[in-house]
Amino acid sequence: MTEHDPSLATVAAFKAGMARVPGAVHIVTTDGPAGRAGLTATAVCSVTTDPPTLLVCVNETSSVGQAFISNEAVAINTVGPEFTSLAMLFGGKTPMEERFAASDWAVAASGAPRHLGAAASFDTRVVGGQAVGSHRVLFCEVIDVTLGDDPTPCVYHDRAFKVLTSL
Amino acid sequence: MTEHDPSLATVAAFKAGMARVPGAVHIVTTDGPAGRAGLTATAVCSVTTDPPTLLVCVNETSSVGQAFISNEAVAINTVGPEFTSLAMLFGGKTPMEERFAASDWAVAASGAPRHLGAAASFDTRVVGGQAVGSHRVLFCEVIDVTLGDDPTPCVYHDRAFKVLTSL
Repeated sequence: MTEHDPSLATVAAFKAGMARVPGAVHIVTTDGPAGRAGLTATAVCSVTTDPPTLLVCVNETSSVGQAFISNEAVAINTVGPEFTSLAMLFGGKTPMEERFAASDWAVAASGAPRHLGAAASFDTRVVGGQAVGSHRVLFCEVIDVTLGDDPTPCVYHDRAFKVLTSL
Repeated sequence: MTEHDPSLATVAAFKAGMARVPGAVHIVTTDGPAGRAGLTATAVCSVTTDPPTLLVCVNETSSVGQAFISNEAVAINTVGPEFTSLAMLFGGKTPMEERFAASDWAVAASGAPRHLGAAASFDTRVVGGQAVGSHRVLFCEVIDVTLGDDPTPCVYHDRAFKVLTSL
């Protein structure tokens, strides 16, 4: 951590605000020369349809983030409520081999592991990045989209997994 | 639209995949020399806590996006299900004066309008941007966070507004 700028919100206030912002649960994976790796993220966002692009924010110093950048191949797997245990596994300290052994995957065109139970999987090529503080925003061009049999997504909100209900 | 690169997913496939990805509903506003403006967005993402930073993706050619960039002051108001009509208003073609007249606002420290009914409001300064295709990703340092009385958020998924239920 760098020293806190007093003109900015405190980290505690920022986190309290972000706990009120729901986020879809994605298991983001990669494979290639830097090895197979993956993590659970809500920090995924649509950028543009022209060309079809998503972004993922990763910690610059994490080994998984480095693997995303080196491999230039990332699959963004949007998972449903039956995969909250898998999401916890990919959000923790479990070795990569054990994470991937816990579920079923295909190899996407990019080389990244595509989760076979995902509501949607976006196979992407990392085409750029921008460092912002401790993190790097990776811009990922979408080369293929796979829709799963079960479209139900899972949402992380107020530090818990939740599902959606129509209004 | 530029000509479609055949190595990428089609726009239709990308949109079908994105319809399966839930997104929090934000009314993103600005005020300053370029005038008061706002739009509804789900393309908002946490970047880092160090320094506290969010990003917002805006269409480079939209007048609202230009106002965000010129004013360098943006409030990200995360709204709940009682504000779906307001979200529709800010997502349409209604003149700016009418959009803001439809609800209650305070002036945040940045000068941007803070929505008084939001579950959470993030007052930010635009500190950078990155062009990606038709859009620009704006990096917004959070200077203040306000938590609303009602923490309930609203989520957009499968082209409809929804609410969250615990698992």
